[in-house]
Amino acid sequence: MAGGGAMGAVLLDLLVVLAAARLLGVVAEKIGQPAVVGELLAGVALGPSLLGWIAPPDLGSALASGDGGLILSSQALLLVAELGVILLLFEVGLTSDLREMTRVGRSAVFVAILGVVVSFAAGVGASVLLARLGVWPDAAIFHVFIGATFTATSVGITARVLADLGRLSTPDARVILGAAVLDDVVGLIILAVVSALAAGALSPEGLALKIGLAVGFLVLLVGAGLALAPRIVGWAQRHGAAGSALAAGFAVAIGYAFLAVETGLAAVVGAFAAGLVLAGSTPIRELREGVRPLATIFTPFFFAVMGLHVDLGALAAGGPLMIAVGLFLSVIAILGKLAAGLGVVEKGVSKLVVAVGMVPRGEVGLIFAGLGLTALGIGAAEYSAIILVVIVTTFVTPPALKVALARRGSTLRLDRDQDLEVEKVGDEARPLDRVP
Amino acid sequence: MAGGGAMGAVLLDLLVVLAAARLLGVVAEKIGQPAVVGELLAGVALGPSLLGWIAPPDLGSALASGDGGLILSSQALLLVAELGVILLLFEVGLTSDLREMTRVGRSAVFVAILGVVVSFAAGVGASVLLARLGVWPDAAIFHVFIGATFTATSVGITARVLADLGRLSTPDARVILGAAVLDDVVGLIILAVVSALAAGALSPEGLALKIGLAVGFLVLLVGAGLALAPRIVGWAQRHGAAGSALAAGFAVAIGYAFLAVETGLAAVVGAFAAGLVLAGSTPIRELREGVRPLATIFTPFFFAVMGLHVDLGALAAGGPLMIAVGLFLSVIAILGKLAAGLGVVEKGVSKLVVAVGMVPRGEVGLIFAGLGLTALGIGAAEYSAIILVVIVTTFVTPPALKVALARRGSTLRLDRDQDLEVEKVGDEARPLDRVP
Repeated sequence: MAGGGAMGAVLLDLLVVLAAARLLGVVAEKIGQPAVVGELLAGVALGPSLLGWIAPPDLGSALASGDGGLILSSQALLLVAELGVILLLFEVGLTSDLREMTRVGRSAVFVAILGVVVSFAAGVGASVLLARLGVWPDAAIFHVFIGATFTATSVGITARVLADLGRLSTPDARVILGAAVLDDVVGLIILAVVSALAAGALSPEGLALKIGLAVGFLVLLVGAGLALAPRIVGWAQRHGAAGSALAAGFAVAIGYAFLAVETGLAAVVGAFAAGLVLAGSTPIRELREGVRPLATIFTPFFFAVMGLHVDLGALAAGGPLMIAVGLFLSVIAILGKLAAGLGVVEKGVSKLVVAVGMVPRGEVGLIFAGLGLTALGIGAAEYSAIILVVIVTTFVTPPALKVALARRGSTLRLDRDQDLEVEKVGDEARPLDRVP
Repeated sequence: MAGGGAMGAVLLDLLVVLAAARLLGVVAEKIGQPAVVGELLAGVALGPSLLGWIAPPDLGSALASGDGGLILSSQALLLVAELGVILLLFEVGLTSDLREMTRVGRSAVFVAILGVVVSFAAGVGASVLLARLGVWPDAAIFHVFIGATFTATSVGITARVLADLGRLSTPDARVILGAAVLDDVVGLIILAVVSALAAGALSPEGLALKIGLAVGFLVLLVGAGLALAPRIVGWAQRHGAAGSALAAGFAVAIGYAFLAVETGLAAVVGAFAAGLVLAGSTPIRELREGVRPLATIFTPFFFAVMGLHVDLGALAAGGPLMIAVGLFLSVIAILGKLAAGLGVVEKGVSKLVVAVGMVPRGEVGLIFAGLGLTALGIGAAEYSAIILVVIVTTFVTPPALKVALARRGSTLRLDRDQDLEVEKVGDEARPLDRVP
């Protein structure tokens, strides 16, 4: 009787979303697509577009704080989705190598900067052009907002596809992951500037503090964490019962995610950093093997919840003109991020794979768009066009990335063999960095 | 930026509760106690009794349904706690053997009936006696309510201790688990009767329907589930990516928990049934190994949340007389359930272990007490005495069970060796049925 009958509704939501996501994931793989495509479509099918069974949780204001705030119970889905993407990026971090990442660090920096600058310029330019054509509002703050939304990068989609295809230990993946982390810092700055512009009060000191906090967080938690975090899990392994190292590792991931969120960064950036600093710890095998089942269960919720936010009816309500505008903006948004690939300077890194990997806007784009709706008061029609950009860039990436990786093909044989070697240590024949 | 800053508060709650529970769990083991004692105490320390950092989530009205109900965000803890106890009982079910359980079925039936009848009679008798002494309200409905509260059994505590000590595959454990499931059906009936009496309208048809549903659920889902559920996970294993069998198994567990809740039973009874029907499935090893890390992370939340509900300040507010009354009732409650041990008829089953295993009232007792507070309007002082019964019976069980199992000692050598044999199939030297 624990939890009362009301718990039933939550359990049913979890069951329906998980079953649909995994089932469509299997179907997607049968037709040669990454499983994540099926999970996204499961969310679309269950959400307002088709069946309308499950309401999308509010990504922006999300879970209220403990001091008396109230949230909708469909937010239970948001919690498991958030745990899912934290576990995904934690697992990706655990299979990453910080030294290898810094080796392609220059590329990551260039890719991040180029992706942001070109996307921002392209977004502003497209917005101004549409305004000139008379189909779009003509206000400076609005153009800046479109540019800001275009700079977003959702690392979840790309990380998941790379993991599913066993390509996490490639230089391409390292550049993408590094650039995505830097992108989040840049995105934080842009978000702060746009919010300040919207409120009509840009405070250079406040902005400098925000940037300092974010950069300080990354430097401190990766630096100090490298010394400290492995000791915590090592201590837990020596002194605790079975599973203690995993529990300690999970606690480190949640702690890093918390600190990231508090400094204005994404929870996933913290979780990825936690994985990175623990990648060299003694109980690494216990951590990887323990996190895998956790990610298996929770990660699909994240992508399904992302799919829940697709409301095809609302898109149609914007009218054919806004759909055309949205598709035009989507092309610009894709081209803007593809330009980021030119930032690759190291040899042995595929410009195409990196470029495609930076395209998805995902949940970060949704948060930007939501901010525009509430803080800037943009219209429903324009909002639907921006949401279309988020949808197109998110859904186009998994198949495009698969094609780009296939073209890359045999040059990666060595890396894949390394992956497979690690696999065999495991008790079953599945790739270590395959998230399932 | 996914989730927004408000997600931070939830992540911090999860971090603090998990870290405290695991840490005190290690301390408890160092001083020779089951880890679950430390996890319970972690909740007590973080809750209103001591630090007051974390508010206990409302177990009764719990998570609101999806149709617009609102819940406190501290309910995020309730969700992970509920997932934790579902995973614990699912894992216990996976390591159980239905045939072995039916072999001690007669004992389970007698233990359940005896435990309920004697506890109910003892509770009513003690309540009447206290009323005669003038320290307790004298109303028939109130005496019935005390008797009903005394019949509750929380299987979570006992299952966890048995798992931690590697004793799940013993006949004792099978009798306890079987009796606990039957107890839940009986508890459902008693709860329905007491609620109907409180509302002044006892409908025999409604009651018969409830009982029919509950018994039908158990028979149908164990019967049909034995044929169907293993096929579902088998299909998932053959057709899905790595981890698909685990995801399918988890979905079955959540589905069973949902159906149990909808028929008025506890979610854990459904989860246990799901584990039972899957215990003979082909991917049983993948299921067990995958569920273990999940239970490792989530189960401590359940016991810590149970500890959060201990409010020593509120107990003290009842005054010394009510504390004395509570302790007297606790002794009666313990003796009432100890009598259940006499229901053991099969040889090779320890009456003492079974008796001690039936003692904890845990979260089931809290739900009964909460019902008394809201539906029957019992006073705060009497409520604090009843809560003391829940606390004493819950906290006394883990150490008492450990002592009882130690006395049992060498007669279980054979069973323990069987456990250990299975362990060695796993990649690390930890007992298969140890939940960590």
